[in-house]
Amino acid sequence: MQILRVNMKTKTTTREELPKEWELYGCRGLVAKVLLKEVPPACEPLGPFNKLVFANGPLAFPNVSSAGRFSAGGKSPLTGGIKEANSGGIAGLRLAGQGLRAVIIEGQPENREDLYVLHIGKDQINLDNAAEYRMMGIHELTQKLFARYGRDVSLTMIGPAGEMLMSSAAIINADQDGNPSRCCARGGLGAVMGSKGIKAVVVENGGFRQEIKDPGKFNETIKAYAELLRTSHQTSVAYPLYGTAGLISTINELGGMPSYAFRSGSFDQVDKITGEKLYELINERGGEGTPTHACMPGCLIRCSNVFAGRDGKKKVASFEYETIAMLGSNLGIGDFDAIAELNYLCNDYGIDTIEMGATLGVYMDLGLARFGDAAAAARLIREVGSGTLLGKVLGEGAAVTARIFKSLRAPVAKGQSIAAHEPRSIKGMSVTYATSPMGADHTAGVTTRAKVNQLDPNVQMELSRSTQVRMAAVDTLGVCLFVSTAGMKALLYLVEMLNAVYGTEHAAEFIDRLGKDVILTEREFNTRTGFNGYDDRMPEFMTYEAIPPHGAVSDIPEEHYRRFWDDEYWKI
Amino acid sequence: MQILRVNMKTKTTTREELPKEWELYGCRGLVAKVLLKEVPPACEPLGPFNKLVFANGPLAFPNVSSAGRFSAGGKSPLTGGIKEANSGGIAGLRLAGQGLRAVIIEGQPENREDLYVLHIGKDQINLDNAAEYRMMGIHELTQKLFARYGRDVSLTMIGPAGEMLMSSAAIINADQDGNPSRCCARGGLGAVMGSKGIKAVVVENGGFRQEIKDPGKFNETIKAYAELLRTSHQTSVAYPLYGTAGLISTINELGGMPSYAFRSGSFDQVDKITGEKLYELINERGGEGTPTHACMPGCLIRCSNVFAGRDGKKKVASFEYETIAMLGSNLGIGDFDAIAELNYLCNDYGIDTIEMGATLGVYMDLGLARFGDAAAAARLIREVGSGTLLGKVLGEGAAVTARIFKSLRAPVAKGQSIAAHEPRSIKGMSVTYATSPMGADHTAGVTTRAKVNQLDPNVQMELSRSTQVRMAAVDTLGVCLFVSTAGMKALLYLVEMLNAVYGTEHAAEFIDRLGKDVILTEREFNTRTGFNGYDDRMPEFMTYEAIPPHGAVSDIPEEHYRRFWDDEYWKI
Repeated sequence: MQILRVNMKTKTTTREELPKEWELYGCRGLVAKVLLKEVPPACEPLGPFNKLVFANGPLAFPNVSSAGRFSAGGKSPLTGGIKEANSGGIAGLRLAGQGLRAVIIEGQPENREDLYVLHIGKDQINLDNAAEYRMMGIHELTQKLFARYGRDVSLTMIGPAGEMLMSSAAIINADQDGNPSRCCARGGLGAVMGSKGIKAVVVENGGFRQEIKDPGKFNETIKAYAELLRTSHQTSVAYPLYGTAGLISTINELGGMPSYAFRSGSFDQVDKITGEKLYELINERGGEGTPTHACMPGCLIRCSNVFAGRDGKKKVASFEYETIAMLGSNLGIGDFDAIAELNYLCNDYGIDTIEMGATLGVYMDLGLARFGDAAAAARLIREVGSGTLLGKVLGEGAAVTARIFKSLRAPVAKGQSIAAHEPRSIKGMSVTYATSPMGADHTAGVTTRAKVNQLDPNVQMELSRSTQVRMAAVDTLGVCLFVSTAGMKALLYLVEMLNAVYGTEHAAEFIDRLGKDVILTEREFNTRTGFNGYDDRMPEFMTYEAIPPHGAVSDIPEEHYRRFWDDEYWKI
Repeated sequence: MQILRVNMKTKTTTREELPKEWELYGCRGLVAKVLLKEVPPACEPLGPFNKLVFANGPLAFPNVSSAGRFSAGGKSPLTGGIKEANSGGIAGLRLAGQGLRAVIIEGQPENREDLYVLHIGKDQINLDNAAEYRMMGIHELTQKLFARYGRDVSLTMIGPAGEMLMSSAAIINADQDGNPSRCCARGGLGAVMGSKGIKAVVVENGGFRQEIKDPGKFNETIKAYAELLRTSHQTSVAYPLYGTAGLISTINELGGMPSYAFRSGSFDQVDKITGEKLYELINERGGEGTPTHACMPGCLIRCSNVFAGRDGKKKVASFEYETIAMLGSNLGIGDFDAIAELNYLCNDYGIDTIEMGATLGVYMDLGLARFGDAAAAARLIREVGSGTLLGKVLGEGAAVTARIFKSLRAPVAKGQSIAAHEPRSIKGMSVTYATSPMGADHTAGVTTRAKVNQLDPNVQMELSRSTQVRMAAVDTLGVCLFVSTAGMKALLYLVEMLNAVYGTEHAAEFIDRLGKDVILTEREFNTRTGFNGYDDRMPEFMTYEAIPPHGAVSDIPEEHYRRFWDDEYWKI
């Protein structure tokens, strides 16, 4: 496999071999390796010395279920540290089809007004002028790019938020049906893409086939892996039927569903927005909606859905738990259509729905808009998308909004907003949010479904730590984290597949070793940026403001945050 | 001496003895000791767990020249680290007259709308309702408070910026003539005062007399010290005649005068705003103006001036180099009256002129206002003072303004704006700005007048380091830093005075030991906050953007910033 390097100052591209020592690294892990090696940790995230890395994983084959994820990475303008964000869709597989494990975008156009489409084709790689797409929303852009480059390409895009370099800007991928709503959402990587003058990356469907050292073993393992995903409850029933929204009732009962700007962990209108309700509604409406949908070819889990409006037309795909909570319950909005409208707007402008939900929560909590007022929320998101002064402030996310409007209740860690797993009620999430080099990011280590007393502060550190290590490995292999819900066995199959493809002989412990290596690499980047571990902490208000229904505070003993990084544990 | 502790939640006050081990600590050093001992380093700067510390020095006697400085300190909302800012005026001496070395203000009123005057009198200490002063400007407030409490009190106040909790908010002291323009300017400590619900601290002229162990030796040393200040060129001629503005020609020739948002180090209109020109203009105008003025009783240096407008009425007192550069040359404004008007507005709203000058520079540099447009600058400062949305953004300072409006040219270190000693041309200032636990703060270690090649990156680290240590000691003794321009001998007299008052037997090396102790204490606080030394760095654009007239960049070897903290050097 190769790396494509694109210099936006000189407008030149080069291909180079993927270093042998990075052969098994993809996505999050490859981002970490490239950043630590090539990016000055002190650099300005939106300046000429940051790099934007796109990567897929070492198992990005169309016949390996859920293994074609696509990562974006760089130094984050939101956290000031390392950031990787990944999504489904087809961009990961398209890159693999071009023989690419990664694309590294460097430098900046001399003229900051220049805007390009990076077009990666079979025989040529071009930077096409994208002036005509300036400030174009994602939905219209998707249509224009398919019309220009053909329906078979992958699209990786930014909306107006990314062009305006906002810290809440996401990178949006289209899925296999052309729905542009698979988001590399967090950390403001859309702004990094904007700072490189790239509006979209278009990758043609190439014919590259990676060599497989032991095809027989590979195919055999794929079968066993598929069988596991087809029979495990979570991957074969829960996710396909209800998607991530299926979690809502459970999380709400745990007191983990952020409501009214993190003032409650259970939502008084929850009955209107459960996963079961969503399933019914989608089926009832029919039209373009469907409760079960795969974002990439070959995925057996198909957690995605297509949510149609009252007119039966597609509105968002997929309609996810984090969005439903952060733009719904967290804003006091208990109405699927209203939330979907906010989701649609965020998708169109290219905005992270988690950060925006937290931000609007801060704003409403100060009394500057009314909880439950979906029209006000939509108006505010439009301010962001059109870059008014208020929009510029909100577009920087919850921490900056709290600073400008003087709230002590910014729900952030390392400058990034906490996601929809309330860390006072689900205390393992306090550890994940506080310690992850990614800033507050639930995907770094979700402990919500672990079989522990979620309210016991003393058992969370080890739980979060081992979960984070496992997730870092899964994210590095470019595999969907939902695969891990099928148990350790699923991960062992992944190791076997690696062995079959690359001729390695790794055992189960490889997962652990890989995850630790990646997190340590990220942490080293952050250390050189200026983080020292004392910044591994929860927002102060969560340490003294008890949240209903359990009256819990974030009370993981300080010393646990320090012990998290014990050398002994992290030895590889 | 005692410490007064004021709890703003319970509205109670208590007095306690100054711990014996802190006997020689005042001002900056006492702030550091109190903060490290009492304030959780992770706390929200504007939240209930931060504390606001006021302190004077161990030589705050009316007959010791320039030793009555007043410090404010706390965790800074601007830098996120420890902050101390000091000023002249009479508040330091008034506290001493009440037998107080420090006032520690804790907690917050339950009702965030409450506003108080802390009134420290002979027989009583009161929290008087200050609702009538809400959002009142400093000049009117000064008159009201003198009318209410008598002309003999000291006044320590915040303006609207502090009440609105802005990160550029200063704390303003009145001088001995009632001019309210002695600023504890930097780091947003005015916002910390606002967060405590305190609009002003009023201290009556008390009769407390500190015991002096060896009065004979004390008086003898005072005489020798006074003689030195009366004969040293800088303290007896340069400062009294031209004030800090006397530096302008020299600094401009060094290429160290920030002009046009740090795009040049020499100002094309400099001839209109030199210290000599200011001296002439003040004399020519007469009226209430005077080129030579003392901010506190007993000061022999009298660097202060009173600048009168065309009508002969007092406009600002004192009119200082930093303000003339940051609100003048840095904004392309070469007109004393125009700059004085901006200074007046900042004083009235209670805003740090350095931070505001840097902020407006960022704004103008983006083309959002025109360089040289003093009316636009005044309008923007009025937006800050009245708390419009734009004002809220600008009021957060240069780093936040650059983030919102997307400039890569924020002239900041640790979130605080660089002052008017351009660190590319005067390279020792790169080290001071980058390494000081205070963030970019020129007073932490001015190397501008040192006899070195200012453009040689290899000789600056040691110079800045020893200067910073000496300044930390001077700041801890509550002595004006201009005393140190009379040479090491002046500092030795200070040590002798300490020995005479406190019965100690310190030698010259005490200065070095004290300075190191204080800086290490501050650094320890910052470490526990989350700083790790890699954040000791200059703004990226200054490392690649060469500045006229010397074409210099900030190119102190990275390794020097690391060596700055060598354990060997800092051993006490």
